Amino acid sequence: MPYVNFKITREGATAEQKAELIRGATDLLQRVLNKNPKTTVVVIDEVETDNWGIGGEVVTTLRRQNAAK
Amino acid sequence: MPYVNFKITREGATAEQKAELIRGATDLLQRVLNKNPKTTVVVIDEVETDNWGIGGEVVTTLRRQNAAK
Amino acid sequence: MPYVNFKITREGATAEQKAELIRGATDLLQRVLNKNPKTTVVVIDEVETDNWGIGGEVVTTLRRQNAAK
Amino acid sequence: MPYVNFKITREGATAEQKAELIRGATDLLQRVLNKNPKTTVVVIDEVETDNWGIGGEVVTTLRRQNAAK
Amino acid sequence: MPYVNFKITREGATAEQKAELIRGATDLLQRVLNKNPKTTVVVIDEVETDNWGIGGEVVTTLRRQNAAK
Amino acid sequence: MPYVNFKITREGATAEQKAELIRGATDLLQRVLNKNPKTTVVVIDEVETDNWGIGGEVVTTLRRQNAAK
Repeated sequence: MPYVNFKITREGATAEQKAELIRGATDLLQRVLNKNPKTTVVVIDEVETDNWGIGGEVVTTLRRQNAAK
Repeated sequence: MPYVNFKITREGATAEQKAELIRGATDLLQRVLNKNPKTTVVVIDEVETDNWGIGGEVVTTLRRQNAAK
Repeated sequence: MPYVNFKITREGATAEQKAELIRGATDLLQRVLNKNPKTTVVVIDEVETDNWGIGGEVVTTLRRQNAAK
Repeated sequence: MPYVNFKITREGATAEQKAELIRGATDLLQRVLNKNPKTTVVVIDEVETDNWGIGGEVVTTLRRQNAAK
Repeated sequence: MPYVNFKITREGATAEQKAELIRGATDLLQRVLNKNPKTTVVVIDEVETDNWGIGGEVVTTLRRQNAAK
Repeated sequence: MPYVNFKITREGATAEQKAELIRGATDLLQRVLNKNPKTTVVVIDEVETDNWGIGGEVVTTLRRQNAAK
C-alpha cells in the first residue's frame, strides 16, 4: 500500500533501469517495514533538465559547464 | 482552495474524461466538506506505463502479460 | 492502480468525511476511466492553516478576517 | 536541503523564465529561513491545460472562453 | 540530485527503519543510475490511517477488520 | 492558478516566516510569469528531521554531528 515517487532528470534512463528502481523500492519497503509488495505503487517522474534546479542553477547549465571542463 | 492531484497511467484518457475527473473531484469536495468550488484546483498527471510500478512490476510488462492471455 | 492525493486545510474534517472522499474518488475513477477500485490509492493531507496560502495570504489570516466581518 | 515544486500550466514559459523561478525560490528560502542554497532543489512541472482544472472547469476551456471575449 | 518521496501509513516505523529507507533509496539510485548520493534527497511522509484509502476503504477500517479475524 | 509546494524540515519556522514564503512565492510567479496572484496556491510541508535524508543520512543525525563540532 505504500507509495513511492522518484523524481529524476530526464537524461536517458532506460526502461530496464526504471524497472530496477521499481523492484528495488518495492523490495526495500518489504525488507525494512514488511510492507506487502502487491500493493506497493512506484511512480517515476522524469523531469527536463531545464525544469530542475539545484543551488539556484538550472541543471541544463550545470551539465554544459561540466561538459566544458 | 483544496488541491487534488490524480496520477494515472497514460493510456488514452480523453479530454472529456479528464474534464469529468476535474468536475467530479470538485463536486465531491463541495458536497462532502462544503469547499468552495471556485478555488478548488485539480491537476492530472498522466504517467508513461514504463514509469509506473505495482507489485514490483512495471505496468508495461503487466499490460503485455494480460494481452497475451 | 491510480493514485489520488487530496490536500485540504486541517479544519476539523471528520473520519466519516474523509472516508467519503476516499470512496468518492475511487468511484469517480472507476466510473470515468474504468479503473480497478481494488488498487486505487487515496491519500489525504491535512495542512495547518498557517502553512497554506492563497492570493499571497495565509489562510489563518483570511479566516480571522472573515470571522471579524 | 529544502525542496520546492512549482506546478504551472504549459503555456510557453521560456528556459530563462524557469531559471528565474529556480533562482527566486532558492533566494527566498535563504533570505527567509537561512537555508543553504547549495542543497536547495527546485522542480518545475509544466502541466497541459487539458489536465488542469479550477472551479470545476478545464483550463483549456477557460482560455478559449477568454479568447472569445 | 534526485528526490524520493515515500508515503507510508503512520503505524510505528522507528527512526532506525526510516534511516534504512533513506540509505536504501539513496544506494538504489547510485547503483542503478549512478546518481551522486551527496545530493539525493529523501522525504518520508507518514500518513494517519484515517487519511489513507485503498479499494475505496479507509485503512483504519481495514486494520480493524483484520484484527477481528 | 499555479501551485507551489515547499518542503522544509520542521525546525522552528515561525508563522511570520511561513507567511513570507507564501507572499514571496506568489510575487515571484506574478513577476516572472505574470500569474494571477489571486489564484496562486502555496502549501508548506514541514517534515520531521527523522523523516528527511540527504546524502543517505538522516537530518537528525547530521544536526547532532554539527552540534558536536
